Amino acid sequence: MFVLMVYDVNVKRVNKVLKIGRKYLQHIQNSFLEGELSPAQFKSLRQEIKKTIKPEEDCVRFYLLRTTKYLTIDQLGTPQKSAARPDTSVDFL
Amino acid sequence: MFVLMVYDVNVKRVNKVLKIGRKYLQHIQNSFLEGELSPAQFKSLRQEIKKTIKPEEDCVRFYLLRTTKYLTIDQLGTPQKSAARPDTSVDFL
Repeated sequence: MFVLMVYDVNVKRVNKVLKIGRKYLQHIQNSFLEGELSPAQFKSLRQEIKKTIKPEEDCVRFYLLRTTKYLTIDQLGTPQKSAARPDTSVDFL
Repeated sequence: MFVLMVYDVNVKRVNKVLKIGRKYLQHIQNSFLEGELSPAQFKSLRQEIKKTIKPEEDCVRFYLLRTTKYLTIDQLGTPQKSAARPDTSVDFL
């Protein structure tokens, strides 16, 4: 499945959360990652994140898409530094 | 359609981009918004953003979902300040 991950965590845990995310997903922009994962991989990513964050102070949201058939990605401008997506528009159709 | 918007723009334009985004979508986390839009509304949002950003310095990505049938949102922790989503897990099924 296609997974988007977006986080808003205390600065103390930003690096840890990003490091975990990067083990599974591609870093697209600040606080935002995406990638194709198996259900088992997602479970493991979720568990690692859950152990790392403080639920009162942090928030991590996952968008799980069981298919990318109905998804279009439309990009304006250029990814900066860490982001590695040269394409301007990707249609999964 | 369901639209996710994630931006990484020069600090000079952050407020402008967020302000435009908020006219159409709900602000979920830093640099991240989502909401249900008609194709016409999306076109208008995209146009406003395009006019505002500098493509060499900024990047705005839209994820367009023609259906939310295959989407699950899974949230860990608590949204901070501006984010207004009390729910911990939403399944569109």
